[in-house]
Amino acid sequence: LVNEATANRIIKVAERLGYRPNAVARGLKTRRSGSIGVLVPDLLNPVIPPIVRGIEGRLAEAGYNVLLCNADHSEARERIHLEAIRSHQIEGLITANVHHDASPIDPILASGRPVVLVNRVAGEGTLSAAYPDDELCSELAVGHLAELGHRRIAHVAGPGDTSTGVGRLRGFRRALRVHGLKSADSAVIVSKRYTEDEGKRCCSQLIARGTEFTAVYAANDLLAVGCYDALNDVGLGCPSDVSVVGCNDMPFTDRFSPPLTTVNIAHGRLGAAAAELMLEALADPDAQPRQIVIEPTLVVRGSTALARSARISDAGPACR
Amino acid sequence: LVNEATANRIIKVAERLGYRPNAVARGLKTRRSGSIGVLVPDLLNPVIPPIVRGIEGRLAEAGYNVLLCNADHSEARERIHLEAIRSHQIEGLITANVHHDASPIDPILASGRPVVLVNRVAGEGTLSAAYPDDELCSELAVGHLAELGHRRIAHVAGPGDTSTGVGRLRGFRRALRVHGLKSADSAVIVSKRYTEDEGKRCCSQLIARGTEFTAVYAANDLLAVGCYDALNDVGLGCPSDVSVVGCNDMPFTDRFSPPLTTVNIAHGRLGAAAAELMLEALADPDAQPRQIVIEPTLVVRGSTALARSARISDAGPACR
Repeated sequence: LVNEATANRIIKVAERLGYRPNAVARGLKTRRSGSIGVLVPDLLNPVIPPIVRGIEGRLAEAGYNVLLCNADHSEARERIHLEAIRSHQIEGLITANVHHDASPIDPILASGRPVVLVNRVAGEGTLSAAYPDDELCSELAVGHLAELGHRRIAHVAGPGDTSTGVGRLRGFRRALRVHGLKSADSAVIVSKRYTEDEGKRCCSQLIARGTEFTAVYAANDLLAVGCYDALNDVGLGCPSDVSVVGCNDMPFTDRFSPPLTTVNIAHGRLGAAAAELMLEALADPDAQPRQIVIEPTLVVRGSTALARSARISDAGPACR
Repeated sequence: LVNEATANRIIKVAERLGYRPNAVARGLKTRRSGSIGVLVPDLLNPVIPPIVRGIEGRLAEAGYNVLLCNADHSEARERIHLEAIRSHQIEGLITANVHHDASPIDPILASGRPVVLVNRVAGEGTLSAAYPDDELCSELAVGHLAELGHRRIAHVAGPGDTSTGVGRLRGFRRALRVHGLKSADSAVIVSKRYTEDEGKRCCSQLIARGTEFTAVYAANDLLAVGCYDALNDVGLGCPSDVSVVGCNDMPFTDRFSPPLTTVNIAHGRLGAAAAELMLEALADPDAQPRQIVIEPTLVVRGSTALARSARISDAGPACR
C-alpha cells in the first residue's frame, strides 16, 4: 500500500513517539500474537510446574510466551479456557488435560491452530504428543518389587479416562506375567483422580476388603503418599510391613518420611519435547503429527524393602 | 446503529449458525475480554499454585478466567509477559512478582487497567494488595523458639528486594527485642532467592563463619529445607542439635523428615482476597486502593525442640 522507504519512515517515527505494535490489532490481520496457550488439569499436582517450565524454556528461545490455564479438574472451567484461547489470538495449544474423549479441543483444531498433547496421548496418532512410556513405568516398579521378593502386589491405578492411568495399568498386568506372578494374587483398584485423598481412599478400601498384599504400586506419587496415610491409619509400617512405589518423582519426594521409591519421569524434558512439537507445527502446518516418548527410570529410596516372607526366611543381610 | 428488534434478530440468527462472539474483536471495541492476567515469580515455588487457585476460584464466580504467566525469576521474561498482557485485551493484572521497584508494571497502570498485588506489597499504599502480616510471621516463629529456650537464633532472611523478605527481617529484629534477646548474639544472612539451594548456601555460610546458634528461622519453607541439607552435610541433627522454623506452610511440609515447624499463611484466602480487590477495581475504576492483610498462624511440628542447653539443665521431660 505504501512503498518501502515510506513504510520505514513511518516505523521510525512511530518508534520515536513510543508506539508499540498492538498484538491484538496485529493478530487480527496476521493471526500472530506470539502467545501459546497451555492447559493443565490441576496446578496443585506438583508434576505440572516442571512440565510448564520445560515448555516455557523452549518456547521462549523461539520468541513465544506462554499463557497458562488451569482447568482445576472441572470440565466447565476447561471449556471456558478453551473458548478464551480460541477467541484471543493465541497461536496454538499445548494441553495436559486430555481425557480419552478429546472432543473439547475440537473447536481449537477446527480453527486451524496446532494442538500438542503433553504427558497424555489420545486420538490414535492423529495428534502430536510428548508423553512418558507408561507401560515401562509399571514394569520398572513391579520388577523392583519382584526382586525384593514381593509376590502379592496391589495396584492403585490412575483414572480410567487418562492415558497414564490406562497405560500404567496395562503395564502392571504385563509386568506381573513377565515375573511369573498370578494376577489372581494381586489386586487392582482404579482411582477417580490423581490426588492424595483418593490414594488414601483406594488403599483403605483394599485393606477393608481383606486383600492380602505386601506391596502397593500407585500410578502416581500423590496416590502413593495417600497410601502412606491409609497404612498409617491401621498401624502398618512402610516399608516394614508394606512397601510403596509411586510414579513421577515429583519434587520433594526425597524429603518424605519415608523417602518415596518411585519412577522418575523427566518432566522438564517432557515439556521441552512438547514445545518442540509445537514449534514444528507452527513452522509447517501441513507436517504429519509426531509422538515423542520419554523413557522413565527407577529411583530406589526408603519406601521399599524386602518382602516380609523374604525377610523371615532370609538368613543373610535382611533389612536395608 | 440498528434498532433493538433487528439486533436481537441478528443475534438469534448468528447463534443458530454457530457464530460466537470473538473476544478480540469485541475487546477492541469494549476493552472487555473476560480475562485477568496473573503474573508469578516462580511457578516451582509450592506456595504459588494455592494462591493462583484462590484467585481463580473467586474470579470464576464473577465470570472471569485467569491467564497465568510465570516470570521464572527473569526480568526479561517478566517484561515480555507484561507486554503480552498489555497488548492482548486482558482486563487487569494480579501480580506476585513485585520487587521494591514496581516500575515494570507502570505501562499496565498507564493503560488504565487495574493492578492488584498478591503476597507482596509496594508503592506505599497507592496499589491495592493482599498480603500476609510478615512481621507477625517472624514474631510467631521467634516466640516459639524463645519458649523452647533458644537464645541464639539465626535468621536466613528473604531477598532484600521483596516485601516479604524485608518485612520478616524487621519482624525478626523486633521479636528479638520483645523476648529480651540480644541481636549481637544472633546472626542474619540475606538470601538472594527463595529456593532450597539458596537456603542451603546461606546456612552453610553461617556454619562456616563459626556463628553459634541453636535454632534457625528461615523466611520461607524452601529456604528452611535448604537449611536441613546444610545441617545434614556437617552432621548436625534437626531438631536434636539445631531447631528449624520455616514460613508459609507450603504443601507437603507435614510429610518431610522431620516434619517442618512453620508459620501457616492461608494462601487460598490470600488469592481470593486479591481477586476480590480486582473485582472491586473493575467495578469502580475510581475506587481508592485498599489493602487486605492476612493473619498467619504457628504450626508446630517435628523440626523444633528444646534448646540444647535447656535440655541439659532440664530435669523434667526433656525431648519431645
